[in-house]
Amino acid sequence: MQLYQRWRPLLLVLRLPGLQAYKLRTLHEASMPTPPHWLVERLGLFEKLWAVQVTRLASTARKEARTIKVSLPGGQKVDAVAWNTTPYQLARQMSSTLADTALAAEVNGESYDLERPLETDSDLRFLTFDSPEGKSVLWHSSAHILGAAAEQFLGAVLCRGPSTDRGFYHDFFLGKERTVQGSQLPILEQICQRMAADAQPFRRLEVSQDQLRQLFKDNPFKLRVIEEKVTGPTATVYGCGTLVDLCRGPHLRHAGQIGGLKLLAEQELFFFHELSPGSCFFLPRGTRVYNALVAFIRAEYARRGFSEVKTPTVFSVKLWKQSGHWGHYRENIFALQPKGSDPARHPTETLALKPMNCPAHCLMFAHRPRSWRELPVRLADFGALHRAEASGGLGGLTRLWRFQQDDAHIFCAPEQLQAEIRGCLDFLCSVYAVLGFSFSLSLSTRPSSFLGEPRLWDHAEQVLQQALEESGEPWALKPGDGAFYGPKIDVHLQDALGRPHQCGTIQLDFQLPMRFNLQYKGQAGALERPVLIHRAVLGSVERLLAVLTESCGGKWPLWLSPFQVAVIPVGTEQEEYAREIQQSLQAAGLASDLDTDPGLTLSRKVRRAQLTHYNFQFVVGQKEQSKRTVNIRTRDNRRLGEWDLTAAVQRLLELQNARVSNAEEVF
Amino acid sequence: MQLYQRWRPLLLVLRLPGLQAYKLRTLHEASMPTPPHWLVERLGLFEKLWAVQVTRLASTARKEARTIKVSLPGGQKVDAVAWNTTPYQLARQMSSTLADTALAAEVNGESYDLERPLETDSDLRFLTFDSPEGKSVLWHSSAHILGAAAEQFLGAVLCRGPSTDRGFYHDFFLGKERTVQGSQLPILEQICQRMAADAQPFRRLEVSQDQLRQLFKDNPFKLRVIEEKVTGPTATVYGCGTLVDLCRGPHLRHAGQIGGLKLLAEQELFFFHELSPGSCFFLPRGTRVYNALVAFIRAEYARRGFSEVKTPTVFSVKLWKQSGHWGHYRENIFALQPKGSDPARHPTETLALKPMNCPAHCLMFAHRPRSWRELPVRLADFGALHRAEASGGLGGLTRLWRFQQDDAHIFCAPEQLQAEIRGCLDFLCSVYAVLGFSFSLSLSTRPSSFLGEPRLWDHAEQVLQQALEESGEPWALKPGDGAFYGPKIDVHLQDALGRPHQCGTIQLDFQLPMRFNLQYKGQAGALERPVLIHRAVLGSVERLLAVLTESCGGKWPLWLSPFQVAVIPVGTEQEEYAREIQQSLQAAGLASDLDTDPGLTLSRKVRRAQLTHYNFQFVVGQKEQSKRTVNIRTRDNRRLGEWDLTAAVQRLLELQNARVSNAEEVF
Repeated sequence: MQLYQRWRPLLLVLRLPGLQAYKLRTLHEASMPTPPHWLVERLGLFEKLWAVQVTRLASTARKEARTIKVSLPGGQKVDAVAWNTTPYQLARQMSSTLADTALAAEVNGESYDLERPLETDSDLRFLTFDSPEGKSVLWHSSAHILGAAAEQFLGAVLCRGPSTDRGFYHDFFLGKERTVQGSQLPILEQICQRMAADAQPFRRLEVSQDQLRQLFKDNPFKLRVIEEKVTGPTATVYGCGTLVDLCRGPHLRHAGQIGGLKLLAEQELFFFHELSPGSCFFLPRGTRVYNALVAFIRAEYARRGFSEVKTPTVFSVKLWKQSGHWGHYRENIFALQPKGSDPARHPTETLALKPMNCPAHCLMFAHRPRSWRELPVRLADFGALHRAEASGGLGGLTRLWRFQQDDAHIFCAPEQLQAEIRGCLDFLCSVYAVLGFSFSLSLSTRPSSFLGEPRLWDHAEQVLQQALEESGEPWALKPGDGAFYGPKIDVHLQDALGRPHQCGTIQLDFQLPMRFNLQYKGQAGALERPVLIHRAVLGSVERLLAVLTESCGGKWPLWLSPFQVAVIPVGTEQEEYAREIQQSLQAAGLASDLDTDPGLTLSRKVRRAQLTHYNFQFVVGQKEQSKRTVNIRTRDNRRLGEWDLTAAVQRLLELQNARVSNAEEVF
Repeated sequence: MQLYQRWRPLLLVLRLPGLQAYKLRTLHEASMPTPPHWLVERLGLFEKLWAVQVTRLASTARKEARTIKVSLPGGQKVDAVAWNTTPYQLARQMSSTLADTALAAEVNGESYDLERPLETDSDLRFLTFDSPEGKSVLWHSSAHILGAAAEQFLGAVLCRGPSTDRGFYHDFFLGKERTVQGSQLPILEQICQRMAADAQPFRRLEVSQDQLRQLFKDNPFKLRVIEEKVTGPTATVYGCGTLVDLCRGPHLRHAGQIGGLKLLAEQELFFFHELSPGSCFFLPRGTRVYNALVAFIRAEYARRGFSEVKTPTVFSVKLWKQSGHWGHYRENIFALQPKGSDPARHPTETLALKPMNCPAHCLMFAHRPRSWRELPVRLADFGALHRAEASGGLGGLTRLWRFQQDDAHIFCAPEQLQAEIRGCLDFLCSVYAVLGFSFSLSLSTRPSSFLGEPRLWDHAEQVLQQALEESGEPWALKPGDGAFYGPKIDVHLQDALGRPHQCGTIQLDFQLPMRFNLQYKGQAGALERPVLIHRAVLGSVERLLAVLTESCGGKWPLWLSPFQVAVIPVGTEQEEYAREIQQSLQAAGLASDLDTDPGLTLSRKVRRAQLTHYNFQFVVGQKEQSKRTVNIRTRDNRRLGEWDLTAAVQRLLELQNARVSNAEEVF
């Protein structure tokens, strides 16, 4: 993440996640554009350097050939020839199965390509898909294949393409406003398929720093990486098909070892389109996840005494001047063209899209006189926000021009502050517990330039600190890191890859209540000024959905899942009953699909549903139909046996409403 | 409604509904602005004409005095003096109670002010609050009082101020961009209160057409009414306090007969603010109604196989060019300023706020290849829309710049059209049945200038017509009234006042599928073009909420109600238990409030809750506390007796989920 931020002024990064999957789709033939000139040039240079290396290695092998000892797993020891024998040759000697399933090797603790000759006496073990390291090799190699396809077909500038716990993703740059169209994904997949069918080898090349810079002179992202990360005189690059990429390896022997590759957008959650830059289109399944997150927070609002409101999208710039945003944040505010051609239809003043909800909530607090009896007033809003992020800062769902927050503002009396902060922290902790995230808290205190009374700041910081201590969660102090308008608590999520994401926040604000002259009639009858707390738990719903997508890797917990139940009839005679089941699941608010594909056997259909990560499969044969029951399996292939249909639906709804993380286990 | 539409280029109409209520609030003293000069002039002219009329009537009374016979209700006959005896005098003769409770009279079938002298032998009956006509007199007179306050305090230009079934409203114009602030409502109420306290008389004045035009020369709305509606040589105007208004009457004798007056915004559903013209702020209770409507439609979507999606708010104008809206609808589209000062942050092309969802849904349909097996694809979207309506067209919630629709687009094969249209009509009918609206349907066919093949049009019109016939609902044919892109079915709701509102629609579109080159792989393998159906049931959620607000008059059905349960402890000892009940109702998703006002007796608290139209009151005393029960009453003061708390909550949730209209009766 760090790197993208540094590159913000230059790059629009598109994150395209991928997953290994069980089959490849056959699709329309893609018409391939001419590869960009820099790709041809780079490949030419690579081939030249490769030829030199082949000659050099052959010479080394001749000169330094000698017998070395290799210890294999299980204690076996064999002889080999330095600079000649490869791990792959040894695997073949041991068994053809091992030769087929080995993906890479570990030699004296160092990761090795299977085709890289051993140089000295070695402790060697093979990496297969059963180990995390083996998975990582397969997925990381797949990312290269996807990168190659993106370069070839889209002219993409490649950024990072790491493996994750459950697959891989690849970031790349398509120019400031271009994004990948959903309709291009099948074509990308098809190109990957061709590379696999051609069994394109991964070739490891050692190059000097100068050669490295020459190879990547057209990729500003890689140049920056070279500058910052490549410290020794040489580095390795890998070639595979038309791709040349800077990488430490190891990789598969060739692309043919990838059984198939499926892009995660295959879950059909969302897509981007160049006609709406910086905004996301949520498809039906993505909308389902989105709405489930919002419903979760709504239920918490009801429990915790928050009131949801709906405020406008467009406001006079007068509002942003009053709030101070026009002075401090103007660059990020989208303003409307002041007039159309018909003056009767358009306002006489400049209007702007709201980048945040707080000023609207201040207007709402102020729209009628308030009494101390009403406090605290907790206003929550899921309204769409628009912020003109520098377009280089946009990256998939994690940085958008348009997003929604689980934004709330608490207006309270100063003496209520402590209880409210405690409540906010409890809210945060309980939501993150349900989502299964670990997180860390930090307290940011008075910066050198601040507004307001130091006494008020001291008191507020004390209140925040005390609430943090009471929460029992570890927290860090960030002295001087507060906003100019008040101290704050920030929350950093850890996603499945251990990467931090700033999501939740609790901020005190002494300034807005003054700027909007907010008042309430105090218990003694005099007008008093409320304190304002800005707080969000999910933060941007879009960003949190991105974090969840990557951290679940397609295996959504039931309550968030866009793939809850696959209904599978055993034969065509049960199709009608199966359809009826699917419709009643749907009507009950459960995401279900019917698989009536006549070309697949029952077990293949069940397997397919499990690979698509449907939490449950409802199989119905003749017996189930006659008894109005369903035979239930989980995505981990646990067999739950025959259930009465109504009882099964009821149980699913219970588990959904309870938002358990392991519905498949506790069903 | 007609009138406002004609006046669109001139007026921004603000609709301010009001209700009679049981008490007046005491609030801060309002500082009164100087009355506008036209108000002073008009009043001066009125007084002059009034003096002339008084003299003329005195002279008539002298000349034409004779004994007349008056038949009273109950068969009593009394003598009276023509041009002298008034209905009020007769009421006083009959009983002081009648004199106090009579609001107006009916004389020979004509409505009469109580102070208007009888002219001839008369059949007379008195109108009290017990009759619909009496209510109407009280409410209509209250509307005048509100109008007077708005003229005085806000300088408002008055439009209509009719009574309704359950109260009244008054439309007025405050200049193109000004609206009433929520904080001004208490001041308006206070001015009304003063007029009531001063017992300002209603004075009936007969004037000529010329005098009429002179009186209202500063009110373009009234001038238009005079031009269109005043056909005879004379008309009546009424004076009350500083108000002079064109009106047929009758009215109360004086403002003191209004016990009190409360503005409906007191339900705190929504408000408007000049810093966001054309948009509505939904307060917590309004958001509750809004969300309940959306949840209702969502549940129907699940039952009916619609898929909710979320699409962006801002799109390149390229999209609107492709869809054709830039050509036909450009005046109504809000465009963004093309650039901020930092080019990296802003797009290089013009972006615009979406006025409708259809083009976004076309992008979604097209984002990947489609097969006939997927059809029909039914995409639904609650996204916020912005349309630059001529600001004169804005009127409260019924015409806004910003609104949301229950908008859906069906992409289907031509042979699926009939079933889909049938489904759409069924959807409409069942939703309107739950909402308790009557409605009428119309079919609009091919206009003289149309796009597409006449054969296709004929077929489509046939399909729509057949679906209408099958629906069993009456419908009207509007030949030539279809859109240029396809025929349509329009739905007009009747609200409580019998006024029509165009809400739902079902439109066929042959053009957009071509403009977006939408295709699917047909059963035979060739690419085919889908048909597009635009449809909405509620239409604008905002407008429907306005219609419901007026038609319920504050008495919401349980499932929509922002006032579901008032929890009332008998004494202070039960407050804790009552608070616990309120919180568990709230957590269960039920809108509840706690009344711990120490200044009111139990029966006053129950009465207050019933007047606020809480569907249910949960009263808890010592016995209920010890048994963990609640004593339940309905807003119509039906006593449902003691209920176990858990069972009561469960029953409320059942009735809420069933969306019954009469939860109080069937509890």
